[in-house]
Formats: sequence, structure tokens, C-alpha cells
Amino acid sequence: MKVEVVAIGTELLLGQIIDSNSSWMGEQLALAGLDTHYQTKVGDNQARIVEVLRLALSRSDAVICCGGLGPTQDDLTRECIAEVMGVELVRDPVIVQRITDMFAARGRYMAANNLQQADVPVGARTIPQQPGTAPGLVCPMPDGKVVYAVPGVPYEMKEMVLGTILPDLQERSGVRASIVSRVLRTWGQSESGLAEMLAERIEQLDAQALTGAPTPTIAFLASGIEGIKVRVTAKAPTEPEALAMLDAEERVLRGLLGELVFGLDDETMESVVLDLCRAAGLRLAVAESVTGGIIASRMAAVPGASETFLGAVVAYDPVVKHTVLGVPEGPVVTEAAASAMALGVRRVLGADAALATTGVAGPTESEHVPVGTVCLAVAIGDDVTSTTVRLPGDRARVSQFAAISAADLLRRALLAREGVIAG
Amino acid sequence: MKVEVVAIGTELLLGQIIDSNSSWMGEQLALAGLDTHYQTKVGDNQARIVEVLRLALSRSDAVICCGGLGPTQDDLTRECIAEVMGVELVRDPVIVQRITDMFAARGRYMAANNLQQADVPVGARTIPQQPGTAPGLVCPMPDGKVVYAVPGVPYEMKEMVLGTILPDLQERSGVRASIVSRVLRTWGQSESGLAEMLAERIEQLDAQALTGAPTPTIAFLASGIEGIKVRVTAKAPTEPEALAMLDAEERVLRGLLGELVFGLDDETMESVVLDLCRAAGLRLAVAESVTGGIIASRMAAVPGASETFLGAVVAYDPVVKHTVLGVPEGPVVTEAAASAMALGVRRVLGADAALATTGVAGPTESEHVPVGTVCLAVAIGDDVTSTTVRLPGDRARVSQFAAISAADLLRRALLAREGVIAG
Repeated sequence: MKVEVVAIGTELLLGQIIDSNSSWMGEQLALAGLDTHYQTKVGDNQARIVEVLRLALSRSDAVICCGGLGPTQDDLTRECIAEVMGVELVRDPVIVQRITDMFAARGRYMAANNLQQADVPVGARTIPQQPGTAPGLVCPMPDGKVVYAVPGVPYEMKEMVLGTILPDLQERSGVRASIVSRVLRTWGQSESGLAEMLAERIEQLDAQALTGAPTPTIAFLASGIEGIKVRVTAKAPTEPEALAMLDAEERVLRGLLGELVFGLDDETMESVVLDLCRAAGLRLAVAESVTGGIIASRMAAVPGASETFLGAVVAYDPVVKHTVLGVPEGPVVTEAAASAMALGVRRVLGADAALATTGVAGPTESEHVPVGTVCLAVAIGDDVTSTTVRLPGDRARVSQFAAISAADLLRRALLAREGVIAG
Repeated sequence: MKVEVVAIGTELLLGQIIDSNSSWMGEQLALAGLDTHYQTKVGDNQARIVEVLRLALSRSDAVICCGGLGPTQDDLTRECIAEVMGVELVRDPVIVQRITDMFAARGRYMAANNLQQADVPVGARTIPQQPGTAPGLVCPMPDGKVVYAVPGVPYEMKEMVLGTILPDLQERSGVRASIVSRVLRTWGQSESGLAEMLAERIEQLDAQALTGAPTPTIAFLASGIEGIKVRVTAKAPTEPEALAMLDAEERVLRGLLGELVFGLDDETMESVVLDLCRAAGLRLAVAESVTGGIIASRMAAVPGASETFLGAVVAYDPVVKHTVLGVPEGPVVTEAAASAMALGVRRVLGADAALATTGVAGPTESEHVPVGTVCLAVAIGDDVTSTTVRLPGDRARVSQFAAISAADLLRRALLAREGVIAG
């Protein structure tokens, strides 16, 4: 079954907004086993929107329109779909009431044009999920095809796609299977390195799939500075069966990748590190030079961080390293300096564990140390571990890589300690 | 003249990469006075790419293809353009030499398929800018229309679009004018608030444009948490004339907007604040609670920050506020606490100026203070200014808004001080 996405809005063509909605829908459709061959952006122009919709319906089985459902004159999606269906718009009293109630609940005046959002092509039905004032639409076409319409506000769009459109498409496509996926988040290996480590397993799975047996699939997703994601997708007649396949494959992959896997799905390096600290009863402090506050801000961004994360000293100037953290006079891009920073911040903030970064982010070398050189240290109690890494990229990338590398060093130290305790 | 953008790559349809290239090109085309009515994404499939190109050429005067110029079997853009032109591909010896030299210079082995990148449709010419191994193409069509091809790597694409494609399009469209634009960056007013402040000026400009006199245009661009951008665009026969129009309009707008304008074009709130500190001979320290290190990391991201930015104490836990920064015992989400934090970090780090944040980012209230409440303080020497703001949004947005609001408070304090000294 072929599904096409049409993003509607002149602001998308002018580059004022980047169309990340279509990308998200493309990913969801692929995960659901549905093909997408084209995605189109078109401005707020009725003739052109109608032309694009007709073309999309001529080559695909279903079309998802995103945007153009607001209350202004520029919002033409409802009219365009009605024109393609060859029907009139009719005002839906249930939606009128819902919109009126929403304005009343927020204590806001409702201009009359807001009720245009309740206009629905005859024969279409509204999508039950409606987090904002614009309802989504399911519009059946005479030839058995279908056009969906969702607002361009990302969270409204996502709720409708996940709640109604994907299940409706799966039912129409006759795919009765349950498709689930899980992401193993990794840090410390390149995509080609991971591919090599998993090559034999992927061959086994390919061979198994050829026999017709239910087989999970594996995909690598680069995600910028956040490491490589390994996505496992499983398809089975029921969700419990699909989840069981995922669980089994996760065990196999963890066996092959070991500590490279730091978390699952939405977990971040920071949330994992804070969870490990909390489990070990350790309160954490951070000393940052080259990372300039990135580690602290990422830790603080984790909900519930305040239970475990005490704070940080950003010792950007060498003098601050010496006076506040007690780093001995001398060069400051060394493992000795990083170790002294970690012990210093642990003492100053009264923490149990600490991590520290010092290095050269560029644009020019410092203390004759080349750009990209970063020294990291971790202290758990008085035990200090340090290392030096050479990171690629410009100033921003070196800092970001250094931040995640430092958190990963602490993660590994905590896991090793757990192993010692368990052993 | 109508220009269409076609982004080529299955990874775009699958949502593995967000197509920000098309958005950037849309913005550049609009700035150059060229219309874009459609943008299409299509996967790595020869029949479908050819179909999309033919459709685009049927309704537009020029087409820019982005992606699919690499050395692998998936890279089909060259073949597809040749098919649409009805010609063969021929290997360009100059490009062969250039690619061979690039690999040699990097000391890397060159697989034979890399030379496929030197294949050019007969009648096409290569784009002189070639920062990577893939050359861009200018492919004239029999009916006077044109297809351009650029790689999907953003910096390669941008160099070719700015260096060759936009000038070529302007020449083809007969637009001899020079078009320049400048962005006034603002903080502290909503888009509708700015529109109200500039309404009279925009009416004046609209009236002037109707007389046929050269007139700059004004557009508002929301840019997430980074404030509202006011973009002024001027078109004149020569660049000096266009720049003179920009200068004159910038003076008018600054007169109307006053201190709401914090910078121009690529300036950030942090770069502006660090410039003001440097000019005043002040070294800066930061004390962060609710912002958790965001201010420090943004300051440290400014090249040359180390001359002016000493560092920060992230006092996330209240105990750190008391022990390290000397904040008196008691509630910590108050202006008094923020002021004590600013004075404390100034003393501890040996700085001249300091700023501080404390507040409640959520998800739940703290000390009976509602989510979104943030107290900010600025110290220049022993002079302290503080304020309380109520910020909208979730945890991440409250923290980000608080960080920029704090930097803005310091900016205004430094400007006021400059005014006092000047007077």
C-alpha cells in the first residue's frame, strides 16, 4: 500500500519553517510497513493544492495532508479536499461546541472565523483525537482511496497519526500484523564498526528470513553527536509475540555489543548515568572547562535530576581551576589537571562522585596542545580514572563529543564498580 | 520566474534525514525574488525521479535537484537528468583529475566507482565550486529551461547555490538588481507586539512602494526561543545603493524598537553580551540554578569567549547555593537569593560582573512557587539589579527562556551603565 505525504503552507516553501513533520510521518509509515514514494510541499493556493492532491491520489492509495487547517483565509485544506471529493463543506455541530468550549475554558474571546475549523467535507469524518482547535479529517474517496488531513502543529499531528491514521491505514492495507521496534543506543563505535560487529548476526537473520520464519530486522541510524542507534523491528501476528521477538533479539545484540549499548529508546547518556548514580546512592558533581557547562545543562535537563545532580563548577579560565578547584599551578590540559578538577569539585560541592573535562576545542591550539585534545576524569569517592581522547570536528562538535564521552566514562566506571560489588 | 526544488534520496522519505536543504534553498530563492510553488522529495528510483523532473519542468522554468550525486549505485541523479535531456553521459577528464587529486591529497585509496562522479550529461557544464568529490551540474534543456544538480551535503550545496545557481537564475530571469537583506535580532516582544510598534512604518513603506520608488520590505521571522527576527530586504540597481537603503531603514527601525534590538544577523545574545563586557573591561562569572549550565555553555560557545568569560557555578542543589555561593539559609527562589548568588559567584571566581538565575522549571512546583517563575539578578561591581519573570512552556523551554532573559538583563544593565558614563 502506497501512502503519500503533502505538506501545505507557503511558509514551508519560503524556508521559514523546516518541514520536520513529513520526515516524522515518513519514519512512522516505514515502521508500519507502508511505502512512501513521494512527499510534496505546496503553498497556500487552492488551485495548486487541488492539483497536487489529484496527482498524489493518481499514484498512491492514501494521502496525508499536513497543515492548512487553521481559522484564517490562508487555511485552504478543507476546501481543497472537498473540491477533490466533489462535495460541499458542512459545519459539524459537535466540533463547533468543542471549539467554543476550548475558548471558554481558556477564558479567551473567540473570533467568529474560528468556527470555520468545524467545516467538514460531506462524507468525511473527524478524527477523535483533537488536542487543539483544529479537528483532523478522514476523507474517503469514491474509488476506495483516502485522504487524511492533520494540523501542522507537531504534537497535534502526532497524536492524530498515531491514534487514528496509522491504525486505519493498517486496517485498509489488510496488514493484521503487529509491528514494534526498539532502539539500542550505542556510544563509542562508528557505524561501520558496529556493522562489522553485527555482520554475522545480520547474515543469520537474512538466511532465517529466506526460510519464511518470522525474523526481526536491524537498521543503523546515525543521530549526529548522540551516537549510533541500532533499531530492531519485529512483525508478528500479535503484539506479545512481536515483543517477545524484540526481547530475544535485544539479548543477542547486547551479547555482541556489550557496554557499547548505553540505553534504550528515549534514554539519554545523562539519564542513564543519573539512574546509575541514584541506584548506587551517589550524588554527582561536575567540573567543566572545554565543555563549558554542556554536561551540567544536559544533566539538569533530565526530569528528577535534582535528586542526584548537585551542580557544577565551570572553570573556563585557568585561574578558576587553581583558586576554586585546587588544581596545582602548571599546564591545565593534562590528565593530572582533569583528575584534580574532579576531586576538587567533589570536595567543593560535597558530592560522592564527580567528572571533569579539560581540553582544546579550538579554533586554535592552546598550551601547544592540538585542537580536539580532551582530558577526562572521573572520581568515585577518592578513586580517580582519567583518559585522553582526540575528538574530530569544529569547536561546537568537540565540546559536545567531549561532554558525552565524559558521561560515558562515568557510566563505565559505575558499571565496573557494580561488577566488582556483584562479584 | 518559477523555480522548483527536488530533493532526491530514499533516506529523506524514510525520515532518517530531515530535508533542511530544501528549506534553505526556498529561503534563498525568495530573497532573490524568485518564486517557488512546489518542492518534492523522491526516493532513489530512476523511473520516479525522471517522472518528477518532467513534471517539475512542465510547470516551472528551472529545477534544482539536491542529492544523488555520490559514487554508489543508489546515486541516480546524473542518469536521470541525461534521460530527461535525451543525451548520453560522458566522463569529464578535468573532473576525473580533480577527484583523483583529492583522494591523493588525503592519502586515501580511491575505489574505481568514485570516477562515476565525473560523468556529465552531454551538453551540461559543471559548477566551478566543488568543495567535495561530487561536481554540481548546470543542464540546459531544449526549451530554454534548466536543471541544476547539487550534492546533498549542506556546505557543498550552499557553496554551489550561492556561487553559481542564484547568479545564473538572476541572469536568466533578467533581474539585474542587487538584492540584500539584514536581520535585526530582537528580544522581549512578541511578534504581534513588534508588528504593532512597526505598523505605521510598514504602512509608510507600502504607500511608498505604490509610487514605484525603491522601497525596502520588512518581514518578521519567529525563531523559536531565540526571539523574533525582523528582516529588512532592499533591491536596487547596484549593491552600494541597496546597502544604503538597508542602512537607512535599520536606523529608522532602531529608532522605533530601541533596546529591543540586541544584534544583527549572526550575532547572538551571548556574543553581544561578551562584546559589551569586553568593551567595558569587565570579566564575567555566572551562577546558575534553574538554567543548569545553559548560560555558561552558550557563553563558552562564542569563539574568543575565554578573554571575558571566567566560568560559572551551577548551584543546582540548594546546599551548593548556601555553602559555595554564600546564599543565606531560607527560600532560594527569590530575588534576594538570585542577588546573593550573583554577588557570591562574582566573589568566588574573582569576576567584575556576574549574572544569576534561580527558579522553577517544572514539571512540579517547588517551595510553593509555580512552574515558570524565575528570579534573575545581575551584579556589576557591587551594584545588583534583580527581577522576577514568569515564563511559558515546559521544563526545557523555561530553562532556555530564562537563560536568554538573564543575558538580556545584563545587556540592558551594561547599556544603561554606558549611558551613565557617556552622560
